[in-house]
Amino acid sequence: MPALASGMGITPQQFEQLQSRVSGTRRVSTKALETTLVSKASVHQTILGIDPSLRGTGYGIIRLARPHPEVLAQGTIKSPAAWERSRCLLNIAQSLREVLKHHQPTVCVVEGLFFAQNLQTALIMGEARGASLVAAAEAGMEIFEIAPRKVKQAVVGYGAAQKSAVAKMVQRMLRLAEQPAPDAADALALALTFAQETGRFSLTPLKRI
Amino acid sequence: MPALASGMGITPQQFEQLQSRVSGTRRVSTKALETTLVSKASVHQTILGIDPSLRGTGYGIIRLARPHPEVLAQGTIKSPAAWERSRCLLNIAQSLREVLKHHQPTVCVVEGLFFAQNLQTALIMGEARGASLVAAAEAGMEIFEIAPRKVKQAVVGYGAAQKSAVAKMVQRMLRLAEQPAPDAADALALALTFAQETGRFSLTPLKRI
Repeated sequence: MPALASGMGITPQQFEQLQSRVSGTRRVSTKALETTLVSKASVHQTILGIDPSLRGTGYGIIRLARPHPEVLAQGTIKSPAAWERSRCLLNIAQSLREVLKHHQPTVCVVEGLFFAQNLQTALIMGEARGASLVAAAEAGMEIFEIAPRKVKQAVVGYGAAQKSAVAKMVQRMLRLAEQPAPDAADALALALTFAQETGRFSLTPLKRI
Repeated sequence: MPALASGMGITPQQFEQLQSRVSGTRRVSTKALETTLVSKASVHQTILGIDPSLRGTGYGIIRLARPHPEVLAQGTIKSPAAWERSRCLLNIAQSLREVLKHHQPTVCVVEGLFFAQNLQTALIMGEARGASLVAAAEAGMEIFEIAPRKVKQAVVGYGAAQKSAVAKMVQRMLRLAEQPAPDAADALALALTFAQETGRFSLTPLKRI
């Protein structure tokens, strides 16, 4: 037992802990978000975020882990401008099905209330959502929606944050080598926010859809 | 050769035709729409119309035949108000899949430009369309859209016709024992309009989606 420990009035175990904390070896920062990310790990370990859009649906699957969540898959389901709308929708559903079969997430999160420029845009965005939700529902997942403002608040700390700020924070939180493409970053941000929201007491419970 | 025929200055064949036309046996009315319905029968014999909506998606499948098109299937895919949205969407896709597998239509028609009260309504209608279109595209069908106004014009002869007038005309044109439910009637009207539109020269070609 080191003389220093007895002199400080603490146990040898406490002394070792203190020593390791100041020694600087493998020090892992534990941010507030990361702590909550793992607290409910038993409920949903693998979370899918989807940011549906006709020609570029972003998706991201994270697995809760220490010291930080892992990205299992992320990307954008692209459809060329020349494709008919129904073909794009089929592409969304089929591509998501492939990803889901491979990684088997247990919960899916999409953007809630959003802003469309006009009715036609809202209709087309709705179609992309419909195709995505069918694929997710087929896989038997629970599906939730979270408002975009809430996602930005959770990830960047500011509800009106720019898209690029979201992508930057997602990259940092998930320790990605490269910044994810905007649509994939939004999807990953949804998954991260879900993890955060379910890991703490919330006045506005998540909406199942 | 009947004396009457020579007295009228017509050939015996023409006389027989005239005689059969006034004799009243098996007289089949040939309305303008019916004529066009069968004229392109070789292209698409079995036509699916869909009127997508979250809790009550109407569908109707007609087969072109003489003396009038036959209804192979028609109905409304209902989802209880208590169901979550994603469950309704899955119900739409799965129910349509069953119907398509059974009747194998080769072409699908949905409503084109439509009017929603607000963005939220448009989004939800879009989701129902997306779920329907995924099911139709999976089955490898060509998919077209027709504006509601054009459907009313074709079926009732008046672009701003009431829903009940559409249902009545659909019942008459398809010789149905009962008037179809409103959503199913709209779907059948779409299929009938497609048959009419493809059977004639049109200044505004149908839009593939």
